[in-house]
Amino acid sequence: MPSSVQPTPYTNGHTTNGLTNGHHHAEHEERARDVGILAMEVYFPNNFVDQAELERFDGVSAGKYTIGLGQERMGFCTDREDIVSLCLTAVERLMRRTGTSYADIGRLDVGTETLIDKSKSVKTNLMRLFEESGNNDVEGVDNLNACYGGTAGLFNSLDWMESSAWDGRLALVVAGDIAVYASGNARCTGGAGAVAMLIGPHAPLVFDQGVRSSFMQHAYDFYKPDMASEYPTVDGQLSIRCYMEALDRCYAKYRQKFAAKIFKNTTTPVNLDCLDFMVFHSPFTKLVQKSLSRLILSDFLAHPEPDYTGKHAGLEKYRGVKLNTTFADKDLEKLLLKLSHDAFSSKTDASLMVARNVGNMYTASLYGGLASLISSHTVEELSKRRVGLFSYGSGVAASLFSAHFVPSDRLTQLVESFRNLRQRLDERSKTAPEEFDAILKSKESTHHSAPFTPAAPVEAVPRDAYYLESIDGMHRRQYLVKRDS
Amino acid sequence: MPSSVQPTPYTNGHTTNGLTNGHHHAEHEERARDVGILAMEVYFPNNFVDQAELERFDGVSAGKYTIGLGQERMGFCTDREDIVSLCLTAVERLMRRTGTSYADIGRLDVGTETLIDKSKSVKTNLMRLFEESGNNDVEGVDNLNACYGGTAGLFNSLDWMESSAWDGRLALVVAGDIAVYASGNARCTGGAGAVAMLIGPHAPLVFDQGVRSSFMQHAYDFYKPDMASEYPTVDGQLSIRCYMEALDRCYAKYRQKFAAKIFKNTTTPVNLDCLDFMVFHSPFTKLVQKSLSRLILSDFLAHPEPDYTGKHAGLEKYRGVKLNTTFADKDLEKLLLKLSHDAFSSKTDASLMVARNVGNMYTASLYGGLASLISSHTVEELSKRRVGLFSYGSGVAASLFSAHFVPSDRLTQLVESFRNLRQRLDERSKTAPEEFDAILKSKESTHHSAPFTPAAPVEAVPRDAYYLESIDGMHRRQYLVKRDS
Repeated sequence: MPSSVQPTPYTNGHTTNGLTNGHHHAEHEERARDVGILAMEVYFPNNFVDQAELERFDGVSAGKYTIGLGQERMGFCTDREDIVSLCLTAVERLMRRTGTSYADIGRLDVGTETLIDKSKSVKTNLMRLFEESGNNDVEGVDNLNACYGGTAGLFNSLDWMESSAWDGRLALVVAGDIAVYASGNARCTGGAGAVAMLIGPHAPLVFDQGVRSSFMQHAYDFYKPDMASEYPTVDGQLSIRCYMEALDRCYAKYRQKFAAKIFKNTTTPVNLDCLDFMVFHSPFTKLVQKSLSRLILSDFLAHPEPDYTGKHAGLEKYRGVKLNTTFADKDLEKLLLKLSHDAFSSKTDASLMVARNVGNMYTASLYGGLASLISSHTVEELSKRRVGLFSYGSGVAASLFSAHFVPSDRLTQLVESFRNLRQRLDERSKTAPEEFDAILKSKESTHHSAPFTPAAPVEAVPRDAYYLESIDGMHRRQYLVKRDS
Repeated sequence: MPSSVQPTPYTNGHTTNGLTNGHHHAEHEERARDVGILAMEVYFPNNFVDQAELERFDGVSAGKYTIGLGQERMGFCTDREDIVSLCLTAVERLMRRTGTSYADIGRLDVGTETLIDKSKSVKTNLMRLFEESGNNDVEGVDNLNACYGGTAGLFNSLDWMESSAWDGRLALVVAGDIAVYASGNARCTGGAGAVAMLIGPHAPLVFDQGVRSSFMQHAYDFYKPDMASEYPTVDGQLSIRCYMEALDRCYAKYRQKFAAKIFKNTTTPVNLDCLDFMVFHSPFTKLVQKSLSRLILSDFLAHPEPDYTGKHAGLEKYRGVKLNTTFADKDLEKLLLKLSHDAFSSKTDASLMVARNVGNMYTASLYGGLASLISSHTVEELSKRRVGLFSYGSGVAASLFSAHFVPSDRLTQLVESFRNLRQRLDERSKTAPEEFDAILKSKESTHHSAPFTPAAPVEAVPRDAYYLESIDGMHRRQYLVKRDS
């Protein structure tokens, strides 16, 4: 926390110290208001591979990963970090930085698809952090559906805070994953990281009520049926198509709900102008650019009087087209990318910083995007602006929802907390593709082994990060935290 | 549905046909009231092993499983059923019987620890059932923490219905598991089944607001770190101790919350008299009997003036004892079992019918207990009575919460729906332990195999049940449903 910003306590709005002196605030509001993100922590591993170097190592054409997919660097974990250590680090750093007591947390939701146990949740592992506080009354478990689990957990925490079950305490939502692929042309779409969010009332980033829309469907686009392997089974073309269709469907329903709930009528048109920023789950950033452009097509098809001399120039022949017949139309794709150029620059580009530099963090990807967006703007640029968020998890679970920034000391704190995000990305250690490949090969052979002692040096673990010390013969994992000596 | 009972539509309370004509009921109540279980469906496989026969087969002393653990029969699945088919069956039967349209469901939560994929949720598999309705806007994914996932899903659905995200539609909660253990003395504690619940406002079984208490802790008591195996890693003694401690802690906090929220003061004592029925997660039914008796100890220790001539007779020397020092005290355990005899008979015994006859259904166990309780009582016996529910999942996640029965046509329907539960248990097919053992051995060798064609005959699949038709080389599963021809 920069010393120039005085921390504002994250109270429940009725008492000034209500959240620092224990449980069950009898005087809390009946229903929480203006619920949203109070504070966030983004953690990514200290190692990355340069995507241009990976292109050469993989023997593919120059630009395939960097320009074709829009990826610059890819983060990865050594065997010193696993899903539990990533989440421990993100939560503990968030709690320390904000000075929040573990006694003041009434709910903790985890989203992940990096499973190291089919039964025991990552959430129960995070209860290690609560031991000292004596607080065990903490609802929430793990939310499981591919990259969507973090959003499911977020929705659950928001709902809890507005329900009769709320007791005035705050919620934590943690999304984290380690994304690795078998060697080949999908490997470059890996990544790793965790995002922890402190959720509460009177937030600087408040979620819009009653407008979130979802698209859920049965599909085998990306899944992990090989329980013994870290690697997924992927039908890449199907997955992109599912993503696009889910986006189309969510956006159509979101606009309906927005009209009803925010405009309070269904005649004022809702379009991309209603969203100052738009953040997407990012498997690779080029897909996000195309996704933003599809919203232009949706707006065009819904618009009663298209502006063919301006924002819809060139779309004449697509006037009667059905959205779900256009996924393979490369001419249309190019045209939409052109038409959406300015919208992408102002609404979305800045949100891709972490995604370009770390890669796909699965459940954490969308929230890393939100952090990137915040880090690239001033308090003034964010104040009173609305951000749309599109979350996608294969299988399929997707939602489009939104939030708005409320000017306050807390917003200043939120923005300040990400001031050094770019610097943190740049300070990581570059690993040669050869060594990265060797590390993944080694992890393949030791994945789920017990007993197991990690080989990577503890010296390379960042300060204040948790790391895996050992796994005993019963698969019980021990973690330590790296502190300055 | 018996013809003598006219179905009452599950409306949102403001319109009489609001839930049968589509989505997004603009006129719905701002906040759902009296939210609870509208209807339930319990599904268990058609095969069982007799526990006395299993004692002989395993070469253990007679009575070890039947008297020592309190188990009579154990249900199990052939390779024709998996977690997806169990849940498909429970949901589809519930929806058909109640005449509910898939378009009227706004949320679907699944709880399971029977993982067949590390990424794709069971919930997305259940979206197959929604295809015909065209409804894809259905929130909720899988909730993962051992036997607790169903309760986590239930809480999430209840919170959603009381939140600003609620749009007037109903929620579905599905809990299901296949519990199997490696050969040896834990195998007899297996089981299998699924429970689907239709959740909505103005319910016949309404959850009490603001009293649910939880106990979450990091423990390695029961977990599944061997991703390739169906079998868990279990520290039996630790697991029982964790269960007992979680119960003690949840009950203490529940009483505090009950006093504050329901008695509206903290001086009127809350004790077991406040709960007309008490249902527990049941790993084996003898543990439930002991658990109920521990609540007597908690009440005694909290009582200002113990009645040593009556309900506390013999507890004199335990007056100053700490609850968490008593887990291994066999004399105390015997005394408590004696003192709790009547309470067990009236409050809990009837809830164990499915648990005794099917075994541990993991996430579905508690809700199978609730169904057993309802099936064993008349509408009059249930009306205006309160039922306590204790949910436990290893790792540890546990909650104690309660609900009360509201006399209405819907309560009559709920009771009628379970009238044939005992008969359904008795109509299953008995399998000899030898054959059961051979089936599990065969499943071990084919677990997670692809491609795979199940060996068990389709003829043995019950009517209106879904079954696994095949798994292709990409691990994609195909299901069919058995109908009368």
